[in-house]
Amino acid sequence: MTKGIDLRKLGEFGLIDRIAQRLPAGAGVALGIGDDAAAFAPAPGQLSLITTDMLVEGIHFDLSYSDPLSLGKKAMSVNLSDIAAMGGKPRHYLLSLAIPPAITLDFLDTFISGMLSRADQFGVQLIGGDTCSSSGPLVLNLTVLGEQSPDLLVRRSGARPGDQICVTGTIGDSALGLRLLRQGDRQGVAIERHLDPVPRVLEGLALAEATIPSAMIDLSDGLSADLGHILDLSAVGARIYSETLPLSDTFREHFPTVTAEALSLALAGGEDYELLFTVPPEKIPLVFSLLEKFGTPVAVIGTITAENTRAVIGSDGREISLNKKGYDHFSSRD
Amino acid sequence: MTKGIDLRKLGEFGLIDRIAQRLPAGAGVALGIGDDAAAFAPAPGQLSLITTDMLVEGIHFDLSYSDPLSLGKKAMSVNLSDIAAMGGKPRHYLLSLAIPPAITLDFLDTFISGMLSRADQFGVQLIGGDTCSSSGPLVLNLTVLGEQSPDLLVRRSGARPGDQICVTGTIGDSALGLRLLRQGDRQGVAIERHLDPVPRVLEGLALAEATIPSAMIDLSDGLSADLGHILDLSAVGARIYSETLPLSDTFREHFPTVTAEALSLALAGGEDYELLFTVPPEKIPLVFSLLEKFGTPVAVIGTITAENTRAVIGSDGREISLNKKGYDHFSSRD
Repeated sequence: MTKGIDLRKLGEFGLIDRIAQRLPAGAGVALGIGDDAAAFAPAPGQLSLITTDMLVEGIHFDLSYSDPLSLGKKAMSVNLSDIAAMGGKPRHYLLSLAIPPAITLDFLDTFISGMLSRADQFGVQLIGGDTCSSSGPLVLNLTVLGEQSPDLLVRRSGARPGDQICVTGTIGDSALGLRLLRQGDRQGVAIERHLDPVPRVLEGLALAEATIPSAMIDLSDGLSADLGHILDLSAVGARIYSETLPLSDTFREHFPTVTAEALSLALAGGEDYELLFTVPPEKIPLVFSLLEKFGTPVAVIGTITAENTRAVIGSDGREISLNKKGYDHFSSRD
Repeated sequence: MTKGIDLRKLGEFGLIDRIAQRLPAGAGVALGIGDDAAAFAPAPGQLSLITTDMLVEGIHFDLSYSDPLSLGKKAMSVNLSDIAAMGGKPRHYLLSLAIPPAITLDFLDTFISGMLSRADQFGVQLIGGDTCSSSGPLVLNLTVLGEQSPDLLVRRSGARPGDQICVTGTIGDSALGLRLLRQGDRQGVAIERHLDPVPRVLEGLALAEATIPSAMIDLSDGLSADLGHILDLSAVGARIYSETLPLSDTFREHFPTVTAEALSLALAGGEDYELLFTVPPEKIPLVFSLLEKFGTPVAVIGTITAENTRAVIGSDGREISLNKKGYDHFSSRD
């Protein structure tokens, strides 16, 4: 096992070079790693999209159960997911790393392998970054750039009364996985969903290019909180039907009946990185036919309302009380 | 004094909103803070430039002597300096913050004031970011975007034998200021240069638009290391004349004779954020006339050579031995 001391011998410039040597040759990059700034040519007529996410050891991940390969993939995925939620095509990214002495070169190489493999999967290229040492936790910051035509961009603010509320895949698995990890489990579908979520880049792009969603967001803070962002910015309300929430077989094995605890995990657990979007009712058939091509399940879970209500309706027809906050990084996690 | 607890009450969304409320209305921004990604319209025919820098408490700054206003300005300046070194026009930026519990809202508000004031000074706009808590040091990551025509961009790789080596302003002040801060001093020109360097954005842009420099870099790691980057990428050598190095009155007060220690601070101290650039000899008069308009001093400190030598020539004509590494973030600072 390579020791941390070698990282300091390698130095800042060595580490950047080490990453740069592993990159494929850059299509569409005017100037990549190695100058004061990177330069790239935006596609004519397209808007540039940009998103950034910081991941801090001890807050967003725990090295006692996050392996470096998954961590590299996840750091990339959470940013790609933001581009997906705009209906954008991701193109480039930058990586900043603050590295504590305990991190080994082996760890870093494996982390970078994970990041590069997820980047390759979606055709995005590393064009710059910064590395430094940290006196505390490992800190990663990724910035991902993408593009889309101005008329195809999907914002959070476009939901209209009568629109149906759709969500891809299943929800609550990541939060369940985190709980299992903290209980000492190390394997299983839910844990995999937490450690290595795959962003819905192709689905988001296809939905946008078919001009289907009126509003879209990715599920990072929990369905309840993320739906709240759409409702706030669209100045509308919503009714969600609890029995329509898409729950995985794994989730149902852990919760054979959907208890309040299960509902809380599904609605407020966060980090599912599924797409939540609203659709005019006449376009719902298009949603199913389009996502079927990707083999991606989709569920219609409720309706946008004109009045400013946020109701979750249980299977008995009664409204369920819900903490709308979801996951907030300044509060404690559970 | 507001306590850190209020930050947790305010929450992640509250902090982003708090910053967004202080922003001027966005010219040229299609979509600013508040959606999954920001969107901006690149100027037609221009390359987009992007640079990122991570600043870690205890590594890049020390809160025992870095006040939050200067820290906000410096975080912005070091990124703007990279765009300046490409001859680019800075336009947009993103901020990521990992905030430990000890940081107060007052601190953050003042930090943001510093960042916004330096941003306003150079016409750049905040379009996105991420905030989270930190279990360790305060960590800042800024990403700055700019633009320039492909034919006007100044790279590190264009230096040619016979080109003259120029540097704006004075060097070594920041390293001297850091030393004085560590000795307990809190005021003075050198300390100001360390805590609040002003990037040469206007100078870099004007030099590029006049197609004067053959290569350019900003002085972040120290003249010796940064010149080394130009030499490496241009596959050339250099002769620097020590008596031509531009040293401030403050620097000369501390070092009435230019000792080996003084030379080390000036050449390897880092964080001057001046521009180092190479110029074909016939364009040297243009350098002086152009920079005079900005009131910015410039010095010609040496010559690019065909052979792969890196020599510093002393006032007695003899070559001075020099550690070419400059400042490396994985090594210790002194």
